[in-house]
Amino acid sequence: MSDYIRKAKFPAILLVLYVLVPLAHAAPGQDTKPNIVLVLMDNFGYGEIGVYGGGVLRGAATPNIDGIAAEGFQLTNYNVEAECTPSRAALMTGRYGIRTRQRPDGPPRGIWYGITQWEITLAEMLSDNGYATGIFGKWHLGDTDGRLPTEQGFDEWYGIKHSSDRAFWPDSYSFAPDSHPDAVFDYVMTGFRGQKPTEIAVYDRAKRTMIDREITDAAIDFIQRKSRENQPFFAYLPYTQTHEPVEAHPDYRGKTGNGSFADVLAQTDAYVGELLDTIDELGLKEDTIFIFTSDNGREGVPRSFGFTGPWRGSMFSPYEGSLRVPFLIRWPEKIPAGQVSNEVVHQIDLFPTLANIVGIDLPNDRIMDGADQSNFLMGKSEKSARESVIIYIGNELFGVKWRNWKMLIKEIDENSYAINRLAYPSFYNLLVDPKEEVPELNYLNDTWVDFPLYQVIEDHEASIAGDSGAPDP
Amino acid sequence: MSDYIRKAKFPAILLVLYVLVPLAHAAPGQDTKPNIVLVLMDNFGYGEIGVYGGGVLRGAATPNIDGIAAEGFQLTNYNVEAECTPSRAALMTGRYGIRTRQRPDGPPRGIWYGITQWEITLAEMLSDNGYATGIFGKWHLGDTDGRLPTEQGFDEWYGIKHSSDRAFWPDSYSFAPDSHPDAVFDYVMTGFRGQKPTEIAVYDRAKRTMIDREITDAAIDFIQRKSRENQPFFAYLPYTQTHEPVEAHPDYRGKTGNGSFADVLAQTDAYVGELLDTIDELGLKEDTIFIFTSDNGREGVPRSFGFTGPWRGSMFSPYEGSLRVPFLIRWPEKIPAGQVSNEVVHQIDLFPTLANIVGIDLPNDRIMDGADQSNFLMGKSEKSARESVIIYIGNELFGVKWRNWKMLIKEIDENSYAINRLAYPSFYNLLVDPKEEVPELNYLNDTWVDFPLYQVIEDHEASIAGDSGAPDP
Repeated sequence: MSDYIRKAKFPAILLVLYVLVPLAHAAPGQDTKPNIVLVLMDNFGYGEIGVYGGGVLRGAATPNIDGIAAEGFQLTNYNVEAECTPSRAALMTGRYGIRTRQRPDGPPRGIWYGITQWEITLAEMLSDNGYATGIFGKWHLGDTDGRLPTEQGFDEWYGIKHSSDRAFWPDSYSFAPDSHPDAVFDYVMTGFRGQKPTEIAVYDRAKRTMIDREITDAAIDFIQRKSRENQPFFAYLPYTQTHEPVEAHPDYRGKTGNGSFADVLAQTDAYVGELLDTIDELGLKEDTIFIFTSDNGREGVPRSFGFTGPWRGSMFSPYEGSLRVPFLIRWPEKIPAGQVSNEVVHQIDLFPTLANIVGIDLPNDRIMDGADQSNFLMGKSEKSARESVIIYIGNELFGVKWRNWKMLIKEIDENSYAINRLAYPSFYNLLVDPKEEVPELNYLNDTWVDFPLYQVIEDHEASIAGDSGAPDP
Repeated sequence: MSDYIRKAKFPAILLVLYVLVPLAHAAPGQDTKPNIVLVLMDNFGYGEIGVYGGGVLRGAATPNIDGIAAEGFQLTNYNVEAECTPSRAALMTGRYGIRTRQRPDGPPRGIWYGITQWEITLAEMLSDNGYATGIFGKWHLGDTDGRLPTEQGFDEWYGIKHSSDRAFWPDSYSFAPDSHPDAVFDYVMTGFRGQKPTEIAVYDRAKRTMIDREITDAAIDFIQRKSRENQPFFAYLPYTQTHEPVEAHPDYRGKTGNGSFADVLAQTDAYVGELLDTIDELGLKEDTIFIFTSDNGREGVPRSFGFTGPWRGSMFSPYEGSLRVPFLIRWPEKIPAGQVSNEVVHQIDLFPTLANIVGIDLPNDRIMDGADQSNFLMGKSEKSARESVIIYIGNELFGVKWRNWKMLIKEIDENSYAINRLAYPSFYNLLVDPKEEVPELNYLNDTWVDFPLYQVIEDHEASIAGDSGAPDP
C-alpha cells in the first residue's frame, strides 16, 4: 500500500485501535493532573485576535490573548464543525457532530438539540478522574431533563441553556408569547450537580451585555475555590460573545471608539487577562493548561461583522471561514513557547489529547474520531496526529480536507445558504489558493489527490454506516 | 474649524509648509547618516509573510523576514499606488504617482513610462548628501536615455529596465520579433554612473529563475565594499519576484513541496536572511535602517496566486488587497522593537522621513505629498503624521481613505477590470468591514464621515489643479 493511502487511512485505523484496546499512554501523561481552563468563543472568526491578523486592525488590541500565543502554541489550521451545537458536541465528546445526532431522519427542527446522556463528555471524563468541573457560559447541548450541563459531568454551572439570539426576544416589540410553547425567553441559570438548576434572570438585551462579565467572575471564583481546596479543576468558559447581538458591557461600551464589535473584542481580551492573572497569582501557571478557541467561524454578513481573516465564507458553510478558528494553548514548560503550526488539527482531538495528558483510558465502547495530539502540542513531533478532516453541515456531508487539499462534493451559495450539488467536485489547494477562489486551476497538475481524498471519505462513510448512533436517553 | 476638518486638511497644510520653507529637522536627524537597505518586492501581497498571516500558511516559513518585525516595526495599514510604475515613482520621489505623470491627456500606452530627470529621487537626495547608492533589481521608471537608474541618482545598477512579463517572450513559440520596434526582449543590465549601461544576458525564463540570486549577490558585494570604504550607503533591492512568472531558482525549485510560489517565498526569505546576516556580520546592525516592503498587491487570480491576506481584490483595483502591502522596518535602538500599528502610512512618506533622519532639507520647488513619519516610527508619537490617502488607478481618481473610513467614487469589476462609476459613492468602515463587503450598511450611523472624506478629495484636487506637472526631460 502506498504511503499516501496509508496515511489517509490513518484515522480509520486509529478508530479500530481505540475500539479494541485501551491505548498505552505517553509518558507525559503519567501522574499529572494539570488544571484545564478552556475558553470557547461563540461565532468568533479566525481573524479577530492580534496574532491572527486582527487586534489593532479590528480596532482593539488583544495583548492578553496574544500573550497565550507568545507563551504557547498557535494553530493556523484548527478545524471545527460549521455551527454551534455540533461543534460543542464534538468538543465535549471527541466525536464528529454527526455521530451525536439524535434524529438523522427526523424533521429539520431539533436535529441538533444536544447530546444524549449516553455520550461521555470531557467533563464526565475529568470528573470521574478527580477533577472539579465547572461550566460558565452557554451550554446549547440540550435543554430537557437529564441533558443539562450539571447532568452531563459538570459540578456547577452559571450561564444559559440556549443561544444569544433569544436575547432579542424580550426586547422585541413583535414577540408573540403565545406563538409556541417552546418559543420562550432564555434565563440566566445557576445549578449544581444533583440539584435542579434555578433561573436567575431573563436573558434580555440588558443582561446580554452583562453576562460575559458574570461568567468571568463566576469562573474566577470557581478557580480560586478549587485552588484553595487543592483539587485539580476543569473550568469551561463558553462565552456568549461574539454571537449576535454583539453589545459590550457598560464598562466597555464606546471604549474603543471603533464600534460595538471592537468594544466587545477589547472586553473579551480584558476578561481573558483576568483569568490569566488569576491563574498566575494563584501560582498555578505551570500547572494549568489554558486554551483559547472558538466554536465556529463568524456569522454571515450582513447579520454580523465578525472577521474570518483571509478565509472565505461564514459559519454554516464548508469554506475555511467556517471551519478554521483560532486555537491557542499555553502550558509552560510542557508546551514549547512561541510555536506556530499549519498542521491539520480538529476540535475532536481535544478529548483524547487531554485524556492522554491526564492519564485516562479512552472509552472502548464507541467510535472516537479524535486523535491524540499531545506529542504534537508538546513539541515531540512536528506532525499532527491527523492529516484529514470530514466536513459536514447539519447531517449533510460536504467534503474532506487532506493535508493542504480540499474536495467539496457540495458547495454553498453564500448569499442564500442554498446547497449546490456539483456534477464534478471542487478541489482547492489551500496553500496556493487559500481563499478558495479557483476550484479547478490548481488541481490540473495534481489529480493524484483524488486517491487520498476519496479514501478519507470512503473510510468515514464505512465507519458511519457501522455506527448505530447515540442511544437515548 | 472643527477638529476633524482640521485634521483632514493636514496634508494640504503640510504641503504648503513644504513649499514655503525648509523644515526644521527633528533632533534625531542631526548628524546621523545610517545606511539604508530597502527591499522592494514585486506584486507581492499583504499576506505572504509569517507575521502578516502567511509563512507556514502559504507553505513556506519566513523566519528571517519575520525577524525584522520582531526587532522592528510592523505596519498593517501601509498604502501604495495600485500598480508598478506609479508605485515606484511615488517611492522614489515622495510624491503621488499622479504628479509624476508625463502625458495626462496622451494615449493609453506609455502614460506610465517613468519619471523625468526633473524629479528628485531618493537616490539623488541621498547621493547629494554623501551616500553611495546602488540599485539591484527592477527599475521600471524609464528606459530611454537620461532616465535609466544610473542617470537618476544611483552610482551602480545590476538588474532589468522593465518588468518580468517580458521574460516570457524569449521562450514563447508565438513571439513575433517583427511586431513593433519597442516589443523587444529585456536584458539583464549592469551600469555605473556616467557610463552607458551594458547588456549582460537576455532576460528569459531561465534567467528569470536566477536573477533574484544575482541581485542579492550584487547587493551584498556593494554593501561589503561600501562598508570597507566607510561610506554610508543606500542599497535599493527591487526584487523581481513575485511578479509572474513565479519560478524559483534551481536551488529552491521543489524545495518546499508546496509549489513554485512557496518555493519562491522560501527563496526570498533566505535571500533577505543573507542580507541581514551581511549587515550584522559587518557590525552595521545599529547603523542600518532595513526595510522590507512591496510595490503593490498581488496580481489578479487566476493570472497568479499571490495572497493579499484578508484584503479584497488585487493590484489595479481600489481595494485594500491592491493598496495595503507589508512594511517592516528595523533600526535597532532608534525604532522600538516588536511594534505593530494600524495607523495610516503611505509609501510617499519614506522620502521625507529618510530626509529628516539623515538631516536633509526637502526640495522647496515642488509639491511633496509625503509626510515625515520619523517621530511615529521612532516611537515618539503613537499617531502617524497622516490620516488620509488618495487612491488612483492610472490617471483616474477612485477615492480616498481617512482614518478607518474609505470612500470610493468608482469601483472595479474584479473579473474584467471594468471601471464602474457610481451614482452614489461606496463607503467602507475598514475596522468593522475589513473585507469591503457591504458598502452602505456601516455608513448609515456615520454619515458625518462625508465631511472629512470629501475635504481630503477637494484639497487634493485643488492641489493637482495648481500643479503644472513634471517638466521634461
